[in-house]
Amino acid sequence: MDKIKTSITELFSIDYPIIQGGMIWCSGHKLVSAVSNCGGLGLIGGGSMRPELFREHIRKTKEETEKPFGVNIPLIYKYSEDLINIALEEGVKIFFTSAGNPAKYTSFLKEKGCKVVHVVSNVKFALKAESAGVDAIVVEGFEAGGHNGKDELTTFVLVPMVVDRVKIPVIAAGGIYDGRGLLAALSLGAEGVQIGSRFAVSVESSASYEFKKRIVEAGDTDTVLVLKKVIPTRLIKNEFAVRVIELENKGAGRDELLKILGEGRARMGIFEGNIEEGELEIGEVAGMIDKISSVREIFDDIVSGYFKYKEKLP
Amino acid sequence: MDKIKTSITELFSIDYPIIQGGMIWCSGHKLVSAVSNCGGLGLIGGGSMRPELFREHIRKTKEETEKPFGVNIPLIYKYSEDLINIALEEGVKIFFTSAGNPAKYTSFLKEKGCKVVHVVSNVKFALKAESAGVDAIVVEGFEAGGHNGKDELTTFVLVPMVVDRVKIPVIAAGGIYDGRGLLAALSLGAEGVQIGSRFAVSVESSASYEFKKRIVEAGDTDTVLVLKKVIPTRLIKNEFAVRVIELENKGAGRDELLKILGEGRARMGIFEGNIEEGELEIGEVAGMIDKISSVREIFDDIVSGYFKYKEKLP
Repeated sequence: MDKIKTSITELFSIDYPIIQGGMIWCSGHKLVSAVSNCGGLGLIGGGSMRPELFREHIRKTKEETEKPFGVNIPLIYKYSEDLINIALEEGVKIFFTSAGNPAKYTSFLKEKGCKVVHVVSNVKFALKAESAGVDAIVVEGFEAGGHNGKDELTTFVLVPMVVDRVKIPVIAAGGIYDGRGLLAALSLGAEGVQIGSRFAVSVESSASYEFKKRIVEAGDTDTVLVLKKVIPTRLIKNEFAVRVIELENKGAGRDELLKILGEGRARMGIFEGNIEEGELEIGEVAGMIDKISSVREIFDDIVSGYFKYKEKLP
Repeated sequence: MDKIKTSITELFSIDYPIIQGGMIWCSGHKLVSAVSNCGGLGLIGGGSMRPELFREHIRKTKEETEKPFGVNIPLIYKYSEDLINIALEEGVKIFFTSAGNPAKYTSFLKEKGCKVVHVVSNVKFALKAESAGVDAIVVEGFEAGGHNGKDELTTFVLVPMVVDRVKIPVIAAGGIYDGRGLLAALSLGAEGVQIGSRFAVSVESSASYEFKKRIVEAGDTDTVLVLKKVIPTRLIKNEFAVRVIELENKGAGRDELLKILGEGRARMGIFEGNIEEGELEIGEVAGMIDKISSVREIFDDIVSGYFKYKEKLP
């Protein structure tokens, strides 16, 4: 298939402006190498890995692909500094950082010759990331799965708003499912897309079968954004989520919510497959995902769809 | 400028698939005739008009344009039946209905030779409207201003989800600002767009100058969706909205919220220009609107932008 060239494919030396979100409990070496081997950019999801496991995933990825790949590191994660050092030791050259201050590591990483991208959810954070010297920004809309911004700006408005205010390339995230989504994101001024949910349900994702099956079964109205007083999180409306919603409707505060949340619920839901009590983090596109496909099938669908729908534009 | 032809322009015999939302307190004859004269479809916003005023607006619109125009009637409005009868008496042939059951008037209006469109916010309502026999559906995303669906589906995901499930044309609403938004909406499979907020701030809108000025000043994070326990409403985060948010955070119920809401706040905010105590209903694109433009300027910007950004797609 024809390549799709933008400033993002140039920045990372890839064939398609399709980046796989570095999702916790999903984005191990199998998913990452499969995406990179298809001509996209795979990202190892550091946020759910202990340092030595993270090193192992980097090494296996290097064995499985000669194409560029990167890592995602949430800066609030307690091992974030360890992960950054390990990635540097292992020769990783592409860092996506999120959930924290981009000023903290950007110049350090840039001095080491790395490309740095930061994830933001409004214009102010985009300008801050640009000032910190990042090479590109991921703007993530309200429809995205998992942790989410407080301002509830959707992909459709956030992309052009940020594009109009920064000089660096913008990568759209949240709500992108197929070739139509890629085409729409580039129409809005993005130079690439980051896709999470659909890859979370791929054959190569390390999420549990139970989690993937639940997402395949989900309809359009099955996700909800909860825990706004703690950290806004989009997930499947299961028994746990309904309990949280009921408490929130009664005015529960941060402490009460932290207590019911407890520890390890994302692992329980995504990795261990506890469908009712875990946090099943996924975006609104859950309603469109109707099978567990291989990364190759997903890629072919997105790229062929892009050209097909572009051709049909009036 | 070149026309942009889709099944929606064919349905309404218009030149561009651009529909102006029939917004309360904004969409009188001046706005409607200006949009229709530019080759789009203007809609009189019946939801804030008494029957005789509504008739006057229809008559003035007919004087000001020979192009097709329509009316928007919220079916929960106490005068909805009167408005429908008046519109029929005055020869109106295009009806957009919202906020109610599409089965109620669709076949009646179709028998009179009218085109009927219903506004929905999820797949189930889209299928229900299709079954009721409407000619097209407006799908309105979470980023839209004013009254909003309960499911919080964004334009980016709602459009392709509904397009894949219905046979009739889909019009995208919520978050559409300029040519990039039109291009993105058509990329996602829509056959047209309905634009509210940007036209609400046009010279020809009947909203107050104070309201328009406040929207021009608004930044990206200045709107919020409140009153979810009553009817979800997106508006500017002013003093009234902050009071509502504080009550909601404490777990206030429907009755308490209805009490603080009272009557006539949308009129107070939009039409009378009480910027802190009124409901300033507007979409997330408020953050992009940076001047009060004429409908002609808005149209030229959208249409020229569409062709410009389409040309730039890789």
